[in-house]
Amino acid sequence: MAILTAARELLAEAGYAELTIEAIAARAGVGKQTIYRWWRGKGAIILDALMETGDNVEPLPDSGDLRADLVAVVRATVAELADPRLSATTRALTIETLSNDELAEQVRDRVLRPQMEAIKDRLRTGPLRPEINLDQAVELLIGPPYHRWMLRTGPLTDEYADGVVDLALAAFQK
Amino acid sequence: MAILTAARELLAEAGYAELTIEAIAARAGVGKQTIYRWWRGKGAIILDALMETGDNVEPLPDSGDLRADLVAVVRATVAELADPRLSATTRALTIETLSNDELAEQVRDRVLRPQMEAIKDRLRTGPLRPEINLDQAVELLIGPPYHRWMLRTGPLTDEYADGVVDLALAAFQK
Repeated sequence: MAILTAARELLAEAGYAELTIEAIAARAGVGKQTIYRWWRGKGAIILDALMETGDNVEPLPDSGDLRADLVAVVRATVAELADPRLSATTRALTIETLSNDELAEQVRDRVLRPQMEAIKDRLRTGPLRPEINLDQAVELLIGPPYHRWMLRTGPLTDEYADGVVDLALAAFQK
Repeated sequence: MAILTAARELLAEAGYAELTIEAIAARAGVGKQTIYRWWRGKGAIILDALMETGDNVEPLPDSGDLRADLVAVVRATVAELADPRLSATTRALTIETLSNDELAEQVRDRVLRPQMEAIKDRLRTGPLRPEINLDQAVELLIGPPYHRWMLRTGPLTDEYADGVVDLALAAFQK
């Protein structure tokens, strides 16, 4: 759809702070009213743009090697965060989540929960200590990279991703 | 200072999205030009307002019991995030960090690094496995609560804080 494509292009080119409904309308060749008929604001457009790219969450592979499977997903997450173009949407949605309660619930339920559930499903086959809370286990894998990305406190590399997995596994399998 | 006090009050009352330079100027009884002479925008004002409240980072106590000391700091962090009024400033600074590169560096260096260094100092006396990377260790304690707060994926309680510490300690002390 032209509007969502325009929104994605502009986001990658100029960033979220610069993104306006006017610019999206101009790029898509429609009037602003057309956009406001369907979306409340730019956050809602970006959310739909993200969902439309088919960024559907696939189940994690289960190779039988928990470390290898977690390294694959954490490396991919860290690489996406490290790339300013790829992480532009995540940045935009995080800003909206912090600013807008209604959108926050949608981002959580449509984007975040499916990603977290996919990791939980892989953790469920373990091996993990039986008393591990799976919600907290997922946070241990993705909370630190997210924190580091958001607050720019350190490099986002494969080596870092592997270190996150190794620390988490030490906790899960003590 | 009247401007910083006005900014803090308005932030607590109305939230960051609603906060404007006009409103801060009106509440402080000054002209907008006075504000723009000293600050570039509302993010910079909030950062100074936060620094002014004397929210200086104290060294963590070292009781000799690592779990007790970490439970104290993680519970306090989680309680602050769980309180909408107390976390309004953190919310505002996180939004600005994601939107504004220049401010991001200031937030990191003036607010975040001192907090993380205080936790690192306590971790340094351990006991921890010697190969643990202290930057990653701190992220393991504060990344998950921050992620949960930001993305609203679960409750922020003392029980949760204790669980974060126990998982992290299992990783640190395996």
